[in-house]
Amino acid sequence: MIIKLKKDVDEKVILEIKEKIEELGLTVVENTSKEEIILGAIGNTKVIDIEKIKNLDGVIDVCVVKEAYKRASRKFHPEDTVIKIGDEVIIGNGKLMMIAGPCSVESEEQVIEIAKKVKASGAKFLRGGAFKPRTSPYAFQGLKYEGLEMLKKAREATGLKIVTELMSIDDLEVFEKDVDVIQIGARNMQNFDLLKKAGKLNKPILLKRGIAATIEEWLMSAEYIMSEGNSNVILCERGIRTYETTTRNTLDISAIPMIKKLSHLPIIVDPSHAAGLRWMVEPLSKAAVAIGADGLIIEVHNNPEKALCDGKQSITPDMYDDIVNRLRPIAESVDRII
Amino acid sequence: MIIKLKKDVDEKVILEIKEKIEELGLTVVENTSKEEIILGAIGNTKVIDIEKIKNLDGVIDVCVVKEAYKRASRKFHPEDTVIKIGDEVIIGNGKLMMIAGPCSVESEEQVIEIAKKVKASGAKFLRGGAFKPRTSPYAFQGLKYEGLEMLKKAREATGLKIVTELMSIDDLEVFEKDVDVIQIGARNMQNFDLLKKAGKLNKPILLKRGIAATIEEWLMSAEYIMSEGNSNVILCERGIRTYETTTRNTLDISAIPMIKKLSHLPIIVDPSHAAGLRWMVEPLSKAAVAIGADGLIIEVHNNPEKALCDGKQSITPDMYDDIVNRLRPIAESVDRII
Amino acid sequence: MIIKLKKDVDEKVILEIKEKIEELGLTVVENTSKEEIILGAIGNTKVIDIEKIKNLDGVIDVCVVKEAYKRASRKFHPEDTVIKIGDEVIIGNGKLMMIAGPCSVESEEQVIEIAKKVKASGAKFLRGGAFKPRTSPYAFQGLKYEGLEMLKKAREATGLKIVTELMSIDDLEVFEKDVDVIQIGARNMQNFDLLKKAGKLNKPILLKRGIAATIEEWLMSAEYIMSEGNSNVILCERGIRTYETTTRNTLDISAIPMIKKLSHLPIIVDPSHAAGLRWMVEPLSKAAVAIGADGLIIEVHNNPEKALCDGKQSITPDMYDDIVNRLRPIAESVDRII
Amino acid sequence: MIIKLKKDVDEKVILEIKEKIEELGLTVVENTSKEEIILGAIGNTKVIDIEKIKNLDGVIDVCVVKEAYKRASRKFHPEDTVIKIGDEVIIGNGKLMMIAGPCSVESEEQVIEIAKKVKASGAKFLRGGAFKPRTSPYAFQGLKYEGLEMLKKAREATGLKIVTELMSIDDLEVFEKDVDVIQIGARNMQNFDLLKKAGKLNKPILLKRGIAATIEEWLMSAEYIMSEGNSNVILCERGIRTYETTTRNTLDISAIPMIKKLSHLPIIVDPSHAAGLRWMVEPLSKAAVAIGADGLIIEVHNNPEKALCDGKQSITPDMYDDIVNRLRPIAESVDRII
Repeated sequence: MIIKLKKDVDEKVILEIKEKIEELGLTVVENTSKEEIILGAIGNTKVIDIEKIKNLDGVIDVCVVKEAYKRASRKFHPEDTVIKIGDEVIIGNGKLMMIAGPCSVESEEQVIEIAKKVKASGAKFLRGGAFKPRTSPYAFQGLKYEGLEMLKKAREATGLKIVTELMSIDDLEVFEKDVDVIQIGARNMQNFDLLKKAGKLNKPILLKRGIAATIEEWLMSAEYIMSEGNSNVILCERGIRTYETTTRNTLDISAIPMIKKLSHLPIIVDPSHAAGLRWMVEPLSKAAVAIGADGLIIEVHNNPEKALCDGKQSITPDMYDDIVNRLRPIAESVDRII
Repeated sequence: MIIKLKKDVDEKVILEIKEKIEELGLTVVENTSKEEIILGAIGNTKVIDIEKIKNLDGVIDVCVVKEAYKRASRKFHPEDTVIKIGDEVIIGNGKLMMIAGPCSVESEEQVIEIAKKVKASGAKFLRGGAFKPRTSPYAFQGLKYEGLEMLKKAREATGLKIVTELMSIDDLEVFEKDVDVIQIGARNMQNFDLLKKAGKLNKPILLKRGIAATIEEWLMSAEYIMSEGNSNVILCERGIRTYETTTRNTLDISAIPMIKKLSHLPIIVDPSHAAGLRWMVEPLSKAAVAIGADGLIIEVHNNPEKALCDGKQSITPDMYDDIVNRLRPIAESVDRII
Repeated sequence: MIIKLKKDVDEKVILEIKEKIEELGLTVVENTSKEEIILGAIGNTKVIDIEKIKNLDGVIDVCVVKEAYKRASRKFHPEDTVIKIGDEVIIGNGKLMMIAGPCSVESEEQVIEIAKKVKASGAKFLRGGAFKPRTSPYAFQGLKYEGLEMLKKAREATGLKIVTELMSIDDLEVFEKDVDVIQIGARNMQNFDLLKKAGKLNKPILLKRGIAATIEEWLMSAEYIMSEGNSNVILCERGIRTYETTTRNTLDISAIPMIKKLSHLPIIVDPSHAAGLRWMVEPLSKAAVAIGADGLIIEVHNNPEKALCDGKQSITPDMYDDIVNRLRPIAESVDRII
Repeated sequence: MIIKLKKDVDEKVILEIKEKIEELGLTVVENTSKEEIILGAIGNTKVIDIEKIKNLDGVIDVCVVKEAYKRASRKFHPEDTVIKIGDEVIIGNGKLMMIAGPCSVESEEQVIEIAKKVKASGAKFLRGGAFKPRTSPYAFQGLKYEGLEMLKKAREATGLKIVTELMSIDDLEVFEKDVDVIQIGARNMQNFDLLKKAGKLNKPILLKRGIAATIEEWLMSAEYIMSEGNSNVILCERGIRTYETTTRNTLDISAIPMIKKLSHLPIIVDPSHAAGLRWMVEPLSKAAVAIGADGLIIEVHNNPEKALCDGKQSITPDMYDDIVNRLRPIAESVDRII
């Protein structure tokens, strides 16, 4: 349930409402939009006396939020979420979050070389898998802690921030200390234990959509993180599973405007995993930027043919540079900056 | 199988190859690209003596086309197909085919009013259902021949060309006489009887993708039309059936670059049916243009709330005008003109 | 809307209700179950004065049928439909409809040989494609009228009834004359022109489920046939399209009890097309019989390795005989007879 | 790669082969079937000199296993796996594993009452959620450790073994101590961290299929568990996500024979979650038993209308008893015992 109040409402009214609702065992979240103050009540809202609240001075309206996600809902938080690391905006406010790097970290030289190149093309974030979720237990599982150290070296060398995937709650502390943006992969989108613990961290979480997750389930997973106190969730559309086989997954491009409608959270697109095809990274990136995505995460490898994983979908740093240049005019025409 | 020949090859060599292959009971199709002449052989190509052909003067290469579609394949026809009505290019060459109009034709006034408005916004084609394929036999089935007459009146009044759906082979003659671009709907994409008969007409065919058709099946359906002699096929992506329910269908945006890779046929996008949501027409149209679609077919109704069918997804002429204006810079940035 | 009346209601009341409703422009269908007489009204039922009807003598209840299918709904027709050809029950009343035969009719000898064998194993129906819907225009399209003649010869030789697919309205007359049960294939499930015309025939129609049709759409397609007067519709579940690729399609086994719940129409299963794998015909047939299907349509070929189409999924007559024998005890345990 | 040896092969040959392969850094698994001894090599098998091994005395054949799952493959282990707890067979050898109980454990009385009743109907296992994976963080998450204690009380009272879901690696020790069969839910099917740790336990693991997992991915997840040393994996088909909405999921009945073909692991069916509809539990159970499933896991609640979760799909103990009775003749006809 949300209670909309006038901006100039008496502070006491806000306090009174909060107290009353919290006394009933519910939680209250406060947000401010350009036009109003919004109090969101989470819990069994049936016990609230709506009429009484409606009659308070400064209350514009009271309405029920039927969606099961609350903190992730645009109704609770009408303005777009802007996420910062320190003072720096990393996503939101029209700035595209450009993340690039190899599927797997393979060596210090490799990751530093790629980092320097994608930085020159305007990327601000380096992606790279240290812990790799692989369908087969016999496939390369990543360099793990060693890989993480290499990412840190690349950060030192370039200033790029690190985005990498967390797979086990055993690594929470290390990730909190060393990683700038923590990725939760598609396979763990409903690993609720991991979500809850990520919700206790003070780090932006990049939450990929599950391979066959509905948009509602995805927002509910964001809610798991947010309900533990961490509001810095970035969603990432990476293709869904359908019957079509010419592409590895089917990029659900409609998910971007749909998420923007239902939620205030930023959303980026992963064109590399969506299609699994190098030559499709560019057209999918164009569509993503034109439709209003807040960023892109792209696999870039210095030698895609020899990549230890997902080489088929990786592009070279030069291709990355070309694509970024061709994206600029599209970004501009929808009021975004790369 | 395709045989690539030098542009300056001796005419006799071409004739010789054709004759030999046709003697074996196969069909030969000839196409010319910027760099070479291509002879495509269709049929049981195992009986052809490849080595003999390879050794002929002027033959660059001989290769097998493993795809089951041949005439629709880019290998047979490397250049993009450009479709004309009379001398006028209607699709191809960077010109976006803009089709707009109501789901169903409801009255002469309605359709003429909409036609005038979308024309003012740059549309060159008027869509409007006269014969409506409806899931329920009790739902409004269209004004039929009367509706067709109204479309003709609107064409007279505005000069817009007519795009409308053909549902029965009983109406082939009427459609050939009266309609400019004949639409075959998603539900009839594998109505092979209809496809074959449409293949004998001298009219552009707009072939919508079946609700759960693979890209290969779709191209095979185009091949059914083309194999009867009609090469003027325009493909239309209109959303596929997936598990996601917030949108009516899931627009398969990857289908556009995939079709461009596999085929030379033009492809347009139907953002109205894809999502079934009025407010999503604009973002999906932007993505479609940015990714390289050759046109858009959009439902426009003068009074969407009272539309006899699909009102929820129809936009007003004013909204259409706004969308087209916002599409122009994106179109420009990918070398397309509206 | 349906009106339930006592069995001993005065005839005049029935007539009165019918007249009143028909005067309003609606259609009335009458059915009788063990316990009551049911009048079903089809059309804009909002104009009916429900209270008035409820108060008539002998009226038990009046209720709205929210489903868009009416004649196909169990609410309109509570008892299972039993279909006869002449005096012989072909499906319903616990008798399994066993249909067997080759994917394509290839020669008179072939089809007669198979027919004799499957008859010996208890089949009463011979299936065989004369007109074949093929994804590719270059694939074998069936022997057409010649194939139909061969089927007739096999019928003469064995007494088996013929089930074969109708693809074009051009062949309606021939099929009405020569075929016992007319099949409408998955690809034509929403070829509404064909459905309507099949609805005017006096022949049982075997309606296959479209590759990605919902159960509701399927029942609506049955309704298209029934609304033209032909109530003899047999539904056939043949696998739906999903993301899973180890089987060609995914047999939707739940569709059988769901159809039985929503509709009174008989439903059979096609285990051959569902999986596309010979060895899976037996287990799927067992599941189908156990769950309550009213019959099976199985591809049987005398030489599956050399079949002109779908050989991989065809079984030999001997395998068919074995399977039928192993199905008998399962059939018995759910009160069905083969 | 697998090496097939004669049953009477000289022990030394086996040892020699094992040593050679292990020296190359690969792992060797030994299994015995009725007819042969099978050595399975896991790792980079390209370095093995196949011809040399083929020529050894007692070697019947050497062949490459192209599937990525090895220990889970029937090629490595031709006979069906039989799982025991202590000396008691719990699944395999024709004995159906019957698991019944409430979605969530709600109180000691509830769970003991249900346990007694389902035991009387022949169940040997009590299911009950103590830790519940819920799409929403605000939905009832289970009684947790308290719930586990109640399950233990019910075990004491009835002798039924406990099957319950593990969601966090934090609870591994407790589950190892207290639970008889550990369930890994659909949402965690690719939580590789959890799988690996479950692979180190000496407990049977019930591995549910992910909502949109392919059969290959599912077997790979079993392989994750098995590759850590735990071979006691029971697969559970519980419906997959498709476009159809009349059932909550679509039971992939073909998965049962397919798993039996590809793997030696036992497989059970969850008819309750598959359809999400109480009345469909019986027909789906019949299909599952007829097609050869090794067991059933069914939600049974003493008061389904008031269940804290999934009440709509729960049946009463009386309904359970009826269903089991009607399943017996079907089980018998496919050589299974309840």
